[in-house]
Amino acid sequence: MSASRGSRRGDVDPFIVMDVMERARAAETAGRRIIHMEVGQPGTGAPAGARAALARALDQPLGYTVALGLPELRAGIAALYRRWYGVELDPARVVVTTGSSSAFILAFTALFEAGDRVALGEPGYPSYRQILRALSLVPVGVPSRDENRLQPVPEDLAGLEVEGLIVASPGNPTGTMLTREALAALVGWAEARGVAFVSDEIYHGLHYGDRAVSALEISQNPWVINSFSKYFSMTGWRVGWMVVPEDQIRRVERLAQNLFICPPHASQIAALAALDCIDELEANRATYAENRRLMLEGLPKAGFTKIAPPDGAFYVYADVSDLTTDSLAFAGEILDGAGVAVTPGIDFDPLRGARTLRFSYARATADIAEGLERLAAFMARR
Amino acid sequence: MSASRGSRRGDVDPFIVMDVMERARAAETAGRRIIHMEVGQPGTGAPAGARAALARALDQPLGYTVALGLPELRAGIAALYRRWYGVELDPARVVVTTGSSSAFILAFTALFEAGDRVALGEPGYPSYRQILRALSLVPVGVPSRDENRLQPVPEDLAGLEVEGLIVASPGNPTGTMLTREALAALVGWAEARGVAFVSDEIYHGLHYGDRAVSALEISQNPWVINSFSKYFSMTGWRVGWMVVPEDQIRRVERLAQNLFICPPHASQIAALAALDCIDELEANRATYAENRRLMLEGLPKAGFTKIAPPDGAFYVYADVSDLTTDSLAFAGEILDGAGVAVTPGIDFDPLRGARTLRFSYARATADIAEGLERLAAFMARR
Repeated sequence: MSASRGSRRGDVDPFIVMDVMERARAAETAGRRIIHMEVGQPGTGAPAGARAALARALDQPLGYTVALGLPELRAGIAALYRRWYGVELDPARVVVTTGSSSAFILAFTALFEAGDRVALGEPGYPSYRQILRALSLVPVGVPSRDENRLQPVPEDLAGLEVEGLIVASPGNPTGTMLTREALAALVGWAEARGVAFVSDEIYHGLHYGDRAVSALEISQNPWVINSFSKYFSMTGWRVGWMVVPEDQIRRVERLAQNLFICPPHASQIAALAALDCIDELEANRATYAENRRLMLEGLPKAGFTKIAPPDGAFYVYADVSDLTTDSLAFAGEILDGAGVAVTPGIDFDPLRGARTLRFSYARATADIAEGLERLAAFMARR
Repeated sequence: MSASRGSRRGDVDPFIVMDVMERARAAETAGRRIIHMEVGQPGTGAPAGARAALARALDQPLGYTVALGLPELRAGIAALYRRWYGVELDPARVVVTTGSSSAFILAFTALFEAGDRVALGEPGYPSYRQILRALSLVPVGVPSRDENRLQPVPEDLAGLEVEGLIVASPGNPTGTMLTREALAALVGWAEARGVAFVSDEIYHGLHYGDRAVSALEISQNPWVINSFSKYFSMTGWRVGWMVVPEDQIRRVERLAQNLFICPPHASQIAALAALDCIDELEANRATYAENRRLMLEGLPKAGFTKIAPPDGAFYVYADVSDLTTDSLAFAGEILDGAGVAVTPGIDFDPLRGARTLRFSYARATADIAEGLERLAAFMARR
C-alpha cells in the first residue's frame, strides 16, 4: 500500500522551539552546559503541599471524577476569583480541564462551526493557530503594534469578519499586559458584534507591577481560560480550567463528558492543595521578579535594547532587527557561540518573527545571571 | 445580552448513563444501598506498584514530557505487543495519549476533513459518535446482527461511502469479540477502499476464553487505540496510547504538541510501572472471571435470557424486548425496585437500544452476587 491517508487539517506546523530544544539537548549530550532561556515552563515543581496531598491520596482508587471536575476544586477556583480580583463567581461556571489545552478544544468546538474565522493577535501563542486549524477553523492573524504593547486594539480589528477573538494578557511571547481600559475596549468590540471573546489568562498571578485584569471583571460573556501550569508551577500535571457563561455550562459538560471523560484525578487533588500554597508560590514569583530585574539590566548591556514592556509572565521579547533578519539562524549562533538556548520569534509571529527573539527567565536565578554574562560576552565578540 | 453563542457541532447528546448514575447517587444520599452495575470502570485502583512508583517520583519537578510521551513508556508499550500478541513493534510508532479520549481526537483530526463520514457498529461506545460530531465529522451507524456477535461484518458495510471505520473488539456494551478472520475481513474491506481503519482495543487483556486479536497482527495500516484505564485499572489517571502507521508519526507528533502538549507526567510514571504489575492485574482479571460466571448463572435465572456472548471486557448486554419497549423506564424501575443501577441501551444503539440493557460486572464479587439476588427477587415480584 502507498503512503497512508491523512487530512489537510492535520497538517499543522511544527513548533520551531522544539527544534531549538532538540539542538540544545544534543549539545548537552555532547557534554556541554547549556543555559535554558527557551523554555516556557517554571524550573520549580508543584508546590510541596500539592505533592503531599497527592501522596496522602495514593491509597484511594482515583477513578473517573465527574466531567467538570471535583466539586471542591471548582469551588476553590471560584474562591480564587474573589481573592485575586474581588469577583464573586458561581462554582457551577468553573470547568476543570486537562490543562488549558483541552479548555481551548472545548471552547472552540462549543463556539464555532467548521470554516468559522477566529482572530488572534500576533505575536501570540502559536498553538492557538494550530488548534484552530486542526478543528477546521480559520485563524486570522492581527499584527499588533509596539505602541500598543504588542497587544491588539479595536482599531487593528476594523473591518474584520470573524466569529471569535482570542486575547492573552499577559501575553506569550511578550509578557505585556492590557490595561483594564484596553481589555474593556476589546470585550466591547466583540460584544457589539456578537463575536465570541476568549480570554487566555494562563499567566495571571505572574505580574511585577499592577496585577492582570480578568475579562470577568468586565463582563460575564467572555470564555476565560486559565491553568495550574504557570503561577501554580504544575505544567506536567495537565490541569487547567475554564469559566463559561452560565447558559453554556450544560453544553460544555456534555462535550467534556464525550471528548475527555474527566481531567486527571491525581492532578486535580494536587491542584486543590496548590490553591493554598501561597507562600511557596509567592516565593517563586519573587524569584521571577529578581530574574526579570537581572534581564532588564543585562539584556540591554548585551545589545538587546528594543524589548516589549515585560509586565508579567516570565518572558522578554526583543526586536533584534538591528542584529539579524533570520532569527532562527541567529538563535543557532547564540546556542553555538554562547551556550544559551533562546527562541526565535517565528513561532509567534509569521510576519515579523524572523527579526525577534524570546528570552525566558523561568529558571533559577544563578542560571539567568550566567546566561546574561554569556550573552554579553558572545555579543561583544560578534 | 441574549443567550450567548454556541455552535451546532457543540450540541452533542448527553450520556443517558449519567442520568442513571445521578439517580443512583440521589438514592444513596437518601440512605439507600445501591449495587452499581451501570459503571464502566474497575472498582479497583491503580496497581500498588504503579502507585509506589509515583510516590517515589513525587520529589521530581514533573514538568512537561515530550509530546509523544516518556521514551521508556513508549518502549514498554511496544514490548507489551510482543508479550500479548507476538508482534514486534517499533516504539517510535507508539504515541502516549491522555487516555483513549485524546487518542480519538488525534486520530480523527489527523485522518479526516470536516464533513467526512465515518462508520461505526451499533451498538457501540456512544462517545465515538459525539467526538466525531464535535469535530464536524459525520458518524454513520451500522446496525450489527446477533448472528455476528453484534459486531459489523463487511456485508453490513456494502455500498457505504465512508472515509473511516471504527471497530472495537471486545466491544462496549456487548463484550463480544471478533475472531481473527472476522477482524481481517473488516481490515481487508477498509484497505481495499482506502478507508481508514481505527481499531479500539481498550478492553484488550480482559478476555475469558481466547485472547483478543490486535489489528496489528493483521496489517500495519490500522490506527490502534488502547488505554491504561481498563485492564490496567487506571481510569482516572487519563493515560492511553495509540499505534500509528510509520509515515504518520511526525504528523501526529505535531498535532499532539499543539493540541495536548503532553499526557500527564505523573500518570505516565504510574503507567510505566503498571506494565510490570502482572500478578495484581491478573488477580483483577480472575475476579472479573468469577463475576462473569455469576452473571451468566444469575441473569438468566432472573429472566434476562437473551444475552450477547460476553467474550471480554466486563459487560453483559441483554436483549430485553420480551420485558419492555422502554429501557430507560425499565432501568428506572430496576433502580427503584431492586436498588440495582443498570444502563439502558439507548446510549449505545439509537435504533434498538430501547429494548436492551447493559450490566457491568466490574465491581467486587460480593456486590455482584448481591445484585443478582436482588434482580432475581425483583423480577419474580414484577
